[in-house]
Amino acid sequence: MLSHSSFRLHARCRFTLPSLSPSFAPNFVSLPYFRPRSHVLPRPRAILQISASITAKPSSELRRKPGASEPDDKLVALRELFSTPNVNIDAYIVPSQDAHQSEFIADCYQRRAYISGFTGSAGTAVITKDKAALWTDGRYFLQAEKQLSSSWILMRAGNLGVPTTGEWLNGVLAPGCRVGIDPFLFSSDSADELKEAISQKNHELVYLYDINLVDEIWKESRPKPPSRPIRLHDLKYAGVDVSSKLASLRSELNNAGSSSIVISMLDEIAWLLNLRGSDVPHSPVMYAYLVVEIDGAKLFVDIAKVNSEVMHYLNNAGVELKPYKSILSEIESLAAKGVCLWLDTTSVSAAIVSTYKSACDKYFGDAGAVNKKKKNVPDGPDSQSLAPTPVYKSSPVSLAKAVKNYAELEGMRNAHLRDAAALAQFWAWLEEEIGNGVVLTEVEVADKLLEFRSRQDGFVDTSFDTISGSGANGAIIHYKPEPDSCSIVDKEKLFLLDSGAQYLDGTTDVTRTVHFGQPSSWQKECFTRVLQGHIALDQAIFPEYYPGFVLDAFARSSLWKSGLDYRHGTGHGVGAALNVHEGPQSISFRFSNMTPLLKGMIVSNEPGYYEDHAFGIRIENLLIVKEANTPVRFGGLEYLGFEKLTFVPIQTKMVDLSLLSATEIDWLNNYHEQVWVKVSPLLEGLASEWLWNNTRPILKR
Amino acid sequence: MLSHSSFRLHARCRFTLPSLSPSFAPNFVSLPYFRPRSHVLPRPRAILQISASITAKPSSELRRKPGASEPDDKLVALRELFSTPNVNIDAYIVPSQDAHQSEFIADCYQRRAYISGFTGSAGTAVITKDKAALWTDGRYFLQAEKQLSSSWILMRAGNLGVPTTGEWLNGVLAPGCRVGIDPFLFSSDSADELKEAISQKNHELVYLYDINLVDEIWKESRPKPPSRPIRLHDLKYAGVDVSSKLASLRSELNNAGSSSIVISMLDEIAWLLNLRGSDVPHSPVMYAYLVVEIDGAKLFVDIAKVNSEVMHYLNNAGVELKPYKSILSEIESLAAKGVCLWLDTTSVSAAIVSTYKSACDKYFGDAGAVNKKKKNVPDGPDSQSLAPTPVYKSSPVSLAKAVKNYAELEGMRNAHLRDAAALAQFWAWLEEEIGNGVVLTEVEVADKLLEFRSRQDGFVDTSFDTISGSGANGAIIHYKPEPDSCSIVDKEKLFLLDSGAQYLDGTTDVTRTVHFGQPSSWQKECFTRVLQGHIALDQAIFPEYYPGFVLDAFARSSLWKSGLDYRHGTGHGVGAALNVHEGPQSISFRFSNMTPLLKGMIVSNEPGYYEDHAFGIRIENLLIVKEANTPVRFGGLEYLGFEKLTFVPIQTKMVDLSLLSATEIDWLNNYHEQVWVKVSPLLEGLASEWLWNNTRPILKR
Repeated sequence: MLSHSSFRLHARCRFTLPSLSPSFAPNFVSLPYFRPRSHVLPRPRAILQISASITAKPSSELRRKPGASEPDDKLVALRELFSTPNVNIDAYIVPSQDAHQSEFIADCYQRRAYISGFTGSAGTAVITKDKAALWTDGRYFLQAEKQLSSSWILMRAGNLGVPTTGEWLNGVLAPGCRVGIDPFLFSSDSADELKEAISQKNHELVYLYDINLVDEIWKESRPKPPSRPIRLHDLKYAGVDVSSKLASLRSELNNAGSSSIVISMLDEIAWLLNLRGSDVPHSPVMYAYLVVEIDGAKLFVDIAKVNSEVMHYLNNAGVELKPYKSILSEIESLAAKGVCLWLDTTSVSAAIVSTYKSACDKYFGDAGAVNKKKKNVPDGPDSQSLAPTPVYKSSPVSLAKAVKNYAELEGMRNAHLRDAAALAQFWAWLEEEIGNGVVLTEVEVADKLLEFRSRQDGFVDTSFDTISGSGANGAIIHYKPEPDSCSIVDKEKLFLLDSGAQYLDGTTDVTRTVHFGQPSSWQKECFTRVLQGHIALDQAIFPEYYPGFVLDAFARSSLWKSGLDYRHGTGHGVGAALNVHEGPQSISFRFSNMTPLLKGMIVSNEPGYYEDHAFGIRIENLLIVKEANTPVRFGGLEYLGFEKLTFVPIQTKMVDLSLLSATEIDWLNNYHEQVWVKVSPLLEGLASEWLWNNTRPILKR
Repeated sequence: MLSHSSFRLHARCRFTLPSLSPSFAPNFVSLPYFRPRSHVLPRPRAILQISASITAKPSSELRRKPGASEPDDKLVALRELFSTPNVNIDAYIVPSQDAHQSEFIADCYQRRAYISGFTGSAGTAVITKDKAALWTDGRYFLQAEKQLSSSWILMRAGNLGVPTTGEWLNGVLAPGCRVGIDPFLFSSDSADELKEAISQKNHELVYLYDINLVDEIWKESRPKPPSRPIRLHDLKYAGVDVSSKLASLRSELNNAGSSSIVISMLDEIAWLLNLRGSDVPHSPVMYAYLVVEIDGAKLFVDIAKVNSEVMHYLNNAGVELKPYKSILSEIESLAAKGVCLWLDTTSVSAAIVSTYKSACDKYFGDAGAVNKKKKNVPDGPDSQSLAPTPVYKSSPVSLAKAVKNYAELEGMRNAHLRDAAALAQFWAWLEEEIGNGVVLTEVEVADKLLEFRSRQDGFVDTSFDTISGSGANGAIIHYKPEPDSCSIVDKEKLFLLDSGAQYLDGTTDVTRTVHFGQPSSWQKECFTRVLQGHIALDQAIFPEYYPGFVLDAFARSSLWKSGLDYRHGTGHGVGAALNVHEGPQSISFRFSNMTPLLKGMIVSNEPGYYEDHAFGIRIENLLIVKEANTPVRFGGLEYLGFEKLTFVPIQTKMVDLSLLSATEIDWLNNYHEQVWVKVSPLLEGLASEWLWNNTRPILKR
């Protein structure tokens, strides 16, 4: 699937354009791309509590109509809290995030949706004593108009003249006000950015550590926090045991002159400890913090989720269990001990960073934690008496996790073959149904796909909400069909299906676009140009150390020749039996992401083309970055290329052969031959026949 | 030709690589690319005074053997000056630059070459009371070893463990020393960088405004400053008159909240005033500063160069003449008047910026000039009494000059056709000579090319030293053959010829690589991959506003497939009857250059491949950025492509047809058809016959 849009409400577009035409600007900033983690906002999803289980529920059961909310009462109750003694604020900001910058979040943390009634994935609510405003981006303007009551002002972020939250607060508040936030819900960097913005009008950003005002008024109706058990991630899939991973991390700490790190990204914790959870939909993670010191480690988690097997396992790994809520007191005691803490301020919350800084000041005076550590100063004995110096760097777990080991790659390969078998069964079924004139909705089709997948060994969950879009719905890049409003899958229109699954051994994400009848020649041209971009990226060879953005234009080049393009990145990282979107690498026009593509990384290859109110096209495979074994290695460098993970036929009916080069035709025929060889052993009957028919070579006239 | 290497002695490589192999690192930092102007160092050239004339002298007359210098005496004399009362320093830095960050500089400003004896283009000399060290990059290690006396330490910049000049000074000087520089010879930014580096050991960077120590000891043997007359650049080539250009600039000043700008880049002055000079080789510019105010303009220039026609012309344009040396007193009086000066600190010298800041402090107190102006505050009447606030921004003339108008483009097109005719005559002559067994050296061949070019209408000069490299010499990217040491043009080896000319109406720059005998299949493969890269860039279509670096990988993609690459950028800007290298745009892996490619810009397209000690291949055309007229304009954007300026056959003998796609063969055949149609009317006899033979279509077997 596409990497996440994650509209960033406060930020400027980093790709500065000299003179944006008004019609372009708003669209540009709402492009879906993989953002640095601190800016990833959750995707749209149902508020309904999911009773997560090893078998996911079909899509149709997961939907809920937005309830008839009573936002006025909520706002009244919220504002009453403004003036309580420990609060004493003039405005309160409710963001979408949980405390871990997660893409998918548990229902009990969907506070912005609760207070505003707006259930879209991206949005920030700001409530003053007499106003309430909600910022969202172009994908959600219509939905927000429907869901927000008249008490709310809709801020169409990205439109010309629409202020940021900070600018708006500076405009509506008298100077010198107090703006409250829950400091767990902001990364340290984004809180600093907000603080800076509102300081222009002398406002103070107030961290309310002990009370979340929304939770306070939500009361009994608030969903319970997730409580399903944590499970071990088998070493045969993880490849490297927890002791080795911790040893490597400690070596990194040592090299950076730090003696401890706090990790708050849930997938980093799951990866590092070889554990998996069921706390949020689509991502097999559990809510936790992890503190790793040179001589120990502490996992802050709801201990009810830890069964005796996991308890024993963690004990053996030297990982102590602590209550989830005790993280701040641990941070305080680390500071008191003079520990130099490694903090990734793009992901670690303002609550943690600020607590550490204050505690350092308290125990060592102001000099300590204020200055950022620039050099690698090993933590020698003589430095024990000095104030600790934090290390502000990206989490080393992020890159380590992105570079997959042999077992992880094998797991991904195997999971993709089973996933391909499920997709072949699905497509064979769908084509037959449609051919027989059966009327199916987008949701019914997605549910059937889930049924096929759930029969595969090791199936756990979908890896994101299936994007099942017929005709014009295919042009809505993160379209989410709802049972009571979705379209039927029209035989005479293009159908875009972007879906993926979590298996015990791997994570999948694949998009195909098909036509059940006769596509127009324009649709074929567009499809073919998307395919040419897909092939160009798939076939790219490039020297090691190049950042991913260098390859982005390869995937657009053929589209550009006709003046076509797509408003999203081309590739995102994918976890191994973990999050379907992960960093730090990406292939996009986010030119500030200098992360090189490294051997063993996994990226998606998903160019597209979208014609508003008409159709959408996307072709997505996952790829492994691997050695290219070129005849020469100029500069003594290794040259890298890609290995395909995804083996699902591409509909040749959609291809305009006159546009393809001989090399491109060879690519398509070779790919289909591999699909047949690899996937047919897992199939029989109708699905096998369908696969045979859909992997036949094409010939140029 | 290739954009300039410009090794930056103090800087780190901005393209940070996670773990450079030792063999790669030193090479990487010496890549030739187009740097931001502040870092452009001059190219290698002869020290001999050139009596510049409208007809350039042949290459063979321009060379000089490095003289038997007596560096010890010079160093003794220089050090004696250290302790004179107005100097009082412990070390002195002599950079390569002139006061205008020029690529080609007049002989009287070649101070580093004079003091050190080292004549390479890139290098910095640092002299302390008891040591003398010279930094240069990998291209010049051998030459520096030969030319430096035993009094000098050679600093092989880029090699592991070699310190920067600042680091070295911090190591060899006792803390708290005074390091002297001529503040005219450092851009404000690079002086600040140096100041910061040596402040770590408490050293002070001392600006010696009134004395250049090298000039002081150079005395009578110092070449006279250039004094040839300034000429008018005809409006039929300039396209826009000086009044209109000044009016546009004043409007930019106004928008930026500034009321005056000082321009120190020589090509910007020449372009803005539609003047041309002959002060330096290869670039038709004159030494000058220009100050443009809202209600006037002053040109600081040696008035002896201004004849009555130019005097009258400038007078009509409202441009007052001032002595070149009076620039600092003008800056001081602007500050005294409270003028908000626009300063491009990447190009304007430390002398000017520092003088302005000091004068602002003197007349208005410290508050004024210290803070950088961030917002567009129009200069209203009520701000007159306040301290002036400088505007630190890139010079607006740089971008205005880069986007050519209709007349400039027409001039470039015409100049390129005449240049192509000269090249056809040259290649016809050369092939015949070589075929007849005549032995010719690389320099003789370059001289003959100059002869053919100088017969063309409007010829002025070469636009850079011709790179004429046979066999292994072709692999030396900025190879400069010397009459007494160069190779013969070997019939059995590849021959790379990179050359260009200045005409009254345009500037050319073209590279072709040929074989007079039978190339090996490996050479053909390499040539073909370079050609495929050249074609891919030439044919690229891309949305407006994209920075040039996005296209760089198109030119490398085919090479990468075999593990090949080249260590230089792919394209640089070119002036219209001006500098052969100009910014701000470029097409390279300098990912920090976000300048978009705009309609009317000119860029080179010059991928290559170089095999050390064996051969070099480069194919270079110049291109105009133009509208692509795509059938769709997705996002309401304009899509851009390229128009070719260069029409010189590409040797088809070198092409491995089996590698080319049908589209690429079509490109080559169409190009050759255009070459014949456009250039043959300018030719007759042997040259016409050669052109016919070398523009015949090729067919895939």
